[in-house]
Amino acid sequence: MNNEKIITMNDLKSNDPSYLETIFSIANGHFGVRASDPIASSDSAGTIVNGFYEMSEINYGEKAYGYAENNQTIVNLPDIRAIKIFDCDDQEFSRSELKSATLDMNTGLSTSIYDVFNPDNQAIELTLQAVLQQTDTHVLGLRYTIKAIDYTEKIKIIKHLDINNDTDETDDPRKSRVLHTVNYEKSEPDNFCEILTAKTQKSQMSIDLAICAQESLEKTVELNQMVSFDIIGLVGDINTKLEVVKTSFSEILADSKSFWHEFWHNSEVNISGDDGLNQAIHYNLFQLTSSTGRDGKTNIPAKGLSGTGYEGHYFWDTEMYMSPFFAYTNPEIARELILYRYSILSESKKRAQELGVAEGALFAWRTINGSEASAYYQAGTAQYHIDADISYAIDRYYKVTADTEFIKKYGFEIVLETARFWHSFGSYNKKGFCFFDVTGPDEYTAIVNNNYYTNRMAKFNMEFAVKLIDKFPDQAKKLGVTHDEYVSLSAAADKVYLPYSEEKQINEQDDSAFEKPIWPFEDTPKSNYPLLLHYHPLNIYRYQVNKQADTLLADFLFDDISRNQLKREYDYYEKITTHDSSLSRSIFSALAARIGLKKKAYGYFMDTVKTDLIDLQKNTADGLHVANLGGSWLTIVMGFGGISIQNSMLTIKNSLPDEWNGLSIRIRFQGRLLKIKYHHSETIIEILDGEPLDIIVDGGKKRIK
Amino acid sequence: MNNEKIITMNDLKSNDPSYLETIFSIANGHFGVRASDPIASSDSAGTIVNGFYEMSEINYGEKAYGYAENNQTIVNLPDIRAIKIFDCDDQEFSRSELKSATLDMNTGLSTSIYDVFNPDNQAIELTLQAVLQQTDTHVLGLRYTIKAIDYTEKIKIIKHLDINNDTDETDDPRKSRVLHTVNYEKSEPDNFCEILTAKTQKSQMSIDLAICAQESLEKTVELNQMVSFDIIGLVGDINTKLEVVKTSFSEILADSKSFWHEFWHNSEVNISGDDGLNQAIHYNLFQLTSSTGRDGKTNIPAKGLSGTGYEGHYFWDTEMYMSPFFAYTNPEIARELILYRYSILSESKKRAQELGVAEGALFAWRTINGSEASAYYQAGTAQYHIDADISYAIDRYYKVTADTEFIKKYGFEIVLETARFWHSFGSYNKKGFCFFDVTGPDEYTAIVNNNYYTNRMAKFNMEFAVKLIDKFPDQAKKLGVTHDEYVSLSAAADKVYLPYSEEKQINEQDDSAFEKPIWPFEDTPKSNYPLLLHYHPLNIYRYQVNKQADTLLADFLFDDISRNQLKREYDYYEKITTHDSSLSRSIFSALAARIGLKKKAYGYFMDTVKTDLIDLQKNTADGLHVANLGGSWLTIVMGFGGISIQNSMLTIKNSLPDEWNGLSIRIRFQGRLLKIKYHHSETIIEILDGEPLDIIVDGGKKRIK
Repeated sequence: MNNEKIITMNDLKSNDPSYLETIFSIANGHFGVRASDPIASSDSAGTIVNGFYEMSEINYGEKAYGYAENNQTIVNLPDIRAIKIFDCDDQEFSRSELKSATLDMNTGLSTSIYDVFNPDNQAIELTLQAVLQQTDTHVLGLRYTIKAIDYTEKIKIIKHLDINNDTDETDDPRKSRVLHTVNYEKSEPDNFCEILTAKTQKSQMSIDLAICAQESLEKTVELNQMVSFDIIGLVGDINTKLEVVKTSFSEILADSKSFWHEFWHNSEVNISGDDGLNQAIHYNLFQLTSSTGRDGKTNIPAKGLSGTGYEGHYFWDTEMYMSPFFAYTNPEIARELILYRYSILSESKKRAQELGVAEGALFAWRTINGSEASAYYQAGTAQYHIDADISYAIDRYYKVTADTEFIKKYGFEIVLETARFWHSFGSYNKKGFCFFDVTGPDEYTAIVNNNYYTNRMAKFNMEFAVKLIDKFPDQAKKLGVTHDEYVSLSAAADKVYLPYSEEKQINEQDDSAFEKPIWPFEDTPKSNYPLLLHYHPLNIYRYQVNKQADTLLADFLFDDISRNQLKREYDYYEKITTHDSSLSRSIFSALAARIGLKKKAYGYFMDTVKTDLIDLQKNTADGLHVANLGGSWLTIVMGFGGISIQNSMLTIKNSLPDEWNGLSIRIRFQGRLLKIKYHHSETIIEILDGEPLDIIVDGGKKRIK
Repeated sequence: MNNEKIITMNDLKSNDPSYLETIFSIANGHFGVRASDPIASSDSAGTIVNGFYEMSEINYGEKAYGYAENNQTIVNLPDIRAIKIFDCDDQEFSRSELKSATLDMNTGLSTSIYDVFNPDNQAIELTLQAVLQQTDTHVLGLRYTIKAIDYTEKIKIIKHLDINNDTDETDDPRKSRVLHTVNYEKSEPDNFCEILTAKTQKSQMSIDLAICAQESLEKTVELNQMVSFDIIGLVGDINTKLEVVKTSFSEILADSKSFWHEFWHNSEVNISGDDGLNQAIHYNLFQLTSSTGRDGKTNIPAKGLSGTGYEGHYFWDTEMYMSPFFAYTNPEIARELILYRYSILSESKKRAQELGVAEGALFAWRTINGSEASAYYQAGTAQYHIDADISYAIDRYYKVTADTEFIKKYGFEIVLETARFWHSFGSYNKKGFCFFDVTGPDEYTAIVNNNYYTNRMAKFNMEFAVKLIDKFPDQAKKLGVTHDEYVSLSAAADKVYLPYSEEKQINEQDDSAFEKPIWPFEDTPKSNYPLLLHYHPLNIYRYQVNKQADTLLADFLFDDISRNQLKREYDYYEKITTHDSSLSRSIFSALAARIGLKKKAYGYFMDTVKTDLIDLQKNTADGLHVANLGGSWLTIVMGFGGISIQNSMLTIKNSLPDEWNGLSIRIRFQGRLLKIKYHHSETIIEILDGEPLDIIVDGGKKRIK
C-alpha cells in the first residue's frame, strides 16, 4: 500500500538519474535543490533561486519595432549537495549507486542512500538527508551519514562549492539556454564556512551561496563506527549580502516539520479508494507549494524550482491553474502572488504604450522582471488575456478572503489599469465593443478578431473595475478615475461583443472560427502530435483545431451559459481539441464533472494527475509541470467537489467519481477552515475553525455550524 | 537643357560618393559594377554577380516547423575598377577628387574623371571609362587615361584584384548582411592576366573574376604625354571555369553601342514638355534593363546589380512591376524571367508540401535559389499571392507575344502547378471557395481571411489553368490532369469568394477589414512614417491602414468593376494608404489616370519617377529601386497611355497629362513594332514593323496599317 505522504523509488516507473533529481527535489519558494548524486557530478544538478536570472539578446530573422529585446534565463547555480570522499590512500570514492530515495511530505525531508566505491571497488554507504527551512527561506540542512561496508579504514571528507559545467546548447523551448556570462567569486571567512558569490554580467544581479560546518569543511575520520557530518547551506537574497546564521540540522528539520504540519492541516485532500491517486495529489500539492515564491517579489516559475525549463519564467499559469489552490487553502500565499504582479505594474504600463495602447497596463506574457521575454508575439504578446487573467485571480482572492484592505491598497490598481488597457485597446463597431488581432489561450489559432475567451475576460475585467470604483470612490479618485471614464468604462464593459453561432447555438471561439475547415484528424498519425512540432503555424492556424480549452475555459470560469449550451459547446470543442497543452485536460475534466459526464471527467483527470510521477510527457527530468500540479487540485475541488462562489455564497455540488469511495477536502473561506466530505450518498460539511456559514449544498441552502 | 539619354553629376542633387557609385553603376544582367573611385577604396565598392550568393543560418527567437532555414546573401565581389598609381619616388597617388561623371545611355559608357594627388599634393588627371559587353555578358572594358597636371614625371601603374574589406554589421533589412565565409584564391597564368576565384563555404558556389591587359598589369610610363591603359575585366559563370577571351575596349564599346541602339529602337519613350522627366524615364529603362538576368537561371534582384540591398533577392516585384515593360518591349527577356521561375518549380513543389498543401507549387516569397528566405512568414510565406502573380505574368506574356510553343512547353506547367496549389489550399464554406490566414500585398494587414487581391488572383490563376487545359489537352494529360481534377478546378475557380461591402458598395480588402477602426492619422507625426519603423506590428494590424495598393492593385490588373465602383474604391482606399511601400504610388497613378483624375495621376507619377535621381528615399546609395523603375514605365504606358489587352485586342486610351505637350512610346505586339504618339487632340499609331492590326483607340476600333 502506498503511503499517502511518502514517495519512494518503488512508487516510480523510471530510475533515470535526472528524472529522480526532479522528483525528489525540495524547495521553499526562495530556492530549490535538485536531488542530485553528491558523488557523481551531473549536468542537471544544481540550485535554482527564484527570480535570479541572466539576460541575453534575443535574435530575430527579421526584427520589428516593439519586439521583446532580451531573454531572461534563470541561472542554474552550483550544487550544494556535492561532496568528495577519499580513502586512506587518497583515492577518491568516485563511483556511486543510488540504493534508495525517499521524500517525506510530512516533514519535507528528502533522503537518498548510496553505495559509494573507491577505485579498488571497496564500498561505503552514504546517506544524504536534505531539508529546507520554510520560515527563514535562506537555509538548507544537509546531513551526510557514512557507514563502512567493505571499506573500514580512514576516510577524508571534503566539502566545497564547485561551479557546475554548462550543459549543451538546445533548441527545445522547454529546456533552458546555456549561459556564459555568470561569474563566480569565492571567499572563506573562516574554515567553517565558504561563500560563493555569483554575479551576472547583463542583468547585473548577484547572490551569495554558502556552506557551513560545525568545525571544519574538511575532516578525516575512522570508519570503525557510523560517521555523521552536518552542513548548513545558505542562499542569500538577490543583490543582498548574505548573513551567516547559526543553526543546526535538527532545528531546520523541526521548522520544516511544523510548516508542513500546518500546511496539511489547512490543505488536506484525501481520496479514499485509490491509494496511488491519493499519494499523487499529495505529491502535487507538496511540490506546488514548494515551488511558489512567497515574498511578493517572485512568483511560480513554469517548472517550479525543480528545473530551469522555460527559463524559469512566470506565465498566466499562476493565475489560472495554481493560485486557485492557494486562494482556497493558503490565501497569504495567493496574496504574495498578486503582490508580485503589483511590483511589475509600472513595467506593464510601459509595455501598453509600446503596443500603442495609450491607457492602462499590459502584463508581459512570459517574464521574470516584468518586461516581455516572448520572442514570438503571435503566441506571446498577442495573448492580451493575461491582463484579465490576473484581475480574475484578484477577484477570486477577494471573494474567498474578503480581504478588503488588500484589494483597496493593491488589487484595485491592477484591476483598474488592466481595465483601462481593454478600454483603450478595444473599439466600437456595429457588432459592439471589439478587440482585433488577438490570440486566445488556444495557441493553435492566432491573430484573430474577437476571441470569445479574450472578450469575455475583458468584459469581466472592466465590470470588476467598475464595481471597485463604486466600492472605493476615494481610492478611485486617487487613481485618477473621472466621471467620464467611469461612464465610458461601464458602457464598454456592457457592450463587449461575444461571438455566438446561431447555427450551432454555441459560443464561437472567434469571428471566423467556424468558417474554417476542421483539421484532417483522420490523416494525422499519432506520431505527428503535438502538431506544433510537425506542421507550419500557417498550416495549423487555417484549420479548426485547438491545442487546449479556450472558449470552454471561459465557460468553466464564469458558468454563465445554460447546461444545454454548455453540453453542446463541450461536445463541439472536445472533437477539435488535441490537448497538446498540458493545461487542457484539467479544464475538460472539471467541465465534464459539472455537466455530469463522470466517465470523461475521471478519464481526463487520471491522464493528468500523475503527469510527473509517471513521467507522462517524458520531460519531467527538466522539471515539474507545476501548472498541472495546480490543475489536478482544481479538477478535484472545482470539478468533482463542485466548489464555487455564486452571488458571494459558497456553493458545493457533489460529483464524486464512481471509482472512488469518498473524497475529503479542506478549504478556507472568509476566515473559516472547512472540511468537506463527499460520499456517494451525501455531502458532509464541518467548520473546523470559525463562524457558522450558509452554504448552497447540492442545490439546497444549509446553515453550517 | 537635359540630354534625354545622358546623365551627368549636374543632373543630380547629391554628391555623396556611394550614392554616385549607384547612379553611375553599369550592368548587363549577369554582373554589375558600381562606379566607385578607383583610387580611394570604398566599403560599398564592388562587383555584383546575379545569383552568386552565400548562405547563413537564420536565427529565430522561437523557431517553429517549416520556417525558412537559411539566409541567401548576394556576395559583394572585389572591385574591378581599383588601380594603384605611384610617383617616381614610389609614393602612392592615394587621394582623389571626382571632377565629373557621365553615363551615356546611347552607348552604355560610364565615364568618371578624377584629380589624383600624391603625398606632395602634386596632381594628375585620371579618366576612367567603363563599358560592358551586352552580347557576351562576361566582359567588361575599362580604359584608364592619365594626364599630367602639376606632376609630370614617371608614374608606375599597378592593376590587381584586391579583396574588399567587410562593411559593418547592420539591422537595416534594406542593406545586406556581412559575410565571413567567402574564400578567395588568386592565380596568374601569365603577367597579362590575373584570375581571382571566389568560393562560398555554405552555398558551395564558386566564380572566377579576371583582369587582363595587352602587355602587363604593371607598367611604368612617362607623363610627358597622355597615357592610356586598357583593362579587360572578365566575370565567369557560376561554378564554371572562366575562359579568357581576347577582345579590346573598342570592340566591347561597339557591342554595347549596338545593343542599346537596338534597345531604344524597340523601347523608346519620349515625353515632350518636360526634359527632366524625359531624362528620368530613359534612365529608369536603361538601369532596369541592365539589372535584369537574361539567362533563364537568374532574375531581377530587388536592387538590381547596383547594390547588395535586400540581399539580392528576387520578389514578386519582377512579375508585377518590371516584367510588364519587358513583355511589351523586349519579350525575349520577359521569356527568360519566366524560365527562371520554371527552374525553381520543383523547389516550389517541396515548399507547398511543407506548408501542408498536398498539391501544386508554392513559390518562395523572397529567394535566389528557389527556397524560402523570408524570416517573417506573416509578411513573407503568407503572401501566397506570388503564385498567382507569376501566372499573371505568364498570361501577359502570352497575350502580348502569342508565343504558344513556349506556353505549352513551360508556362502551362507553372500555371497548372500554381492553380493546383490554390485548389488544394482553399476550402468551401457557405460563402464560397475561401482562403484562410493569408497576407495580401498590403503588409500593414497580415494573416487575414479571404484577402480580396489574393482571392481574385487565385480565381484568375485557376481559370487560366482551365483555359490552358482546354487548349493543350495532350500536354494536360502528360501533366497528370484528370477529368475529375478539371471539373473540380473549374468549379473552385467559379466559386472563389470575393469580399464585397454592400454598405460601402466596394470590394472589401478582407473579411474583417471594414470592421476595424481607421488608423489615427491625425495623431501620427510625419516623422513616424514609415509606420513599420515606429509601431509594433500588432498595433498596425488592428487598424485600417495600408502600406500600399492591395484591393486597388487587383482593380488595376483586371479592370473588372464599374467605373463608379472603381471611383468609390479609389477614394476609400486612398484615404487609408500611407504609400510606405515604393510600389504603391505607380498603381495609384495608373488608376487615377484610368478614372480621369489627371492631377492625382500626374502627382503620384512625379513622386516616383525620379525616386533614385533625387534620392527620394535617402537609400539609393544601397542600390537602385528597380521595381520602381519598372513602375514608372507601367504608369506611363498603362496609365497615361491607357494600353491594355481586352478580349485579346490591343486597346489604347489617351490620358495624356495636361502638363505634357505630347508622349510617344514604342511597344511590340504579336510580332509587330508599334509607335504610338499621344497628343491632347489625338492619338496616332504607326506600325514600324509587321502586319496591319485592328486596335481599339479611345473607344473606337481602328485598322492600323
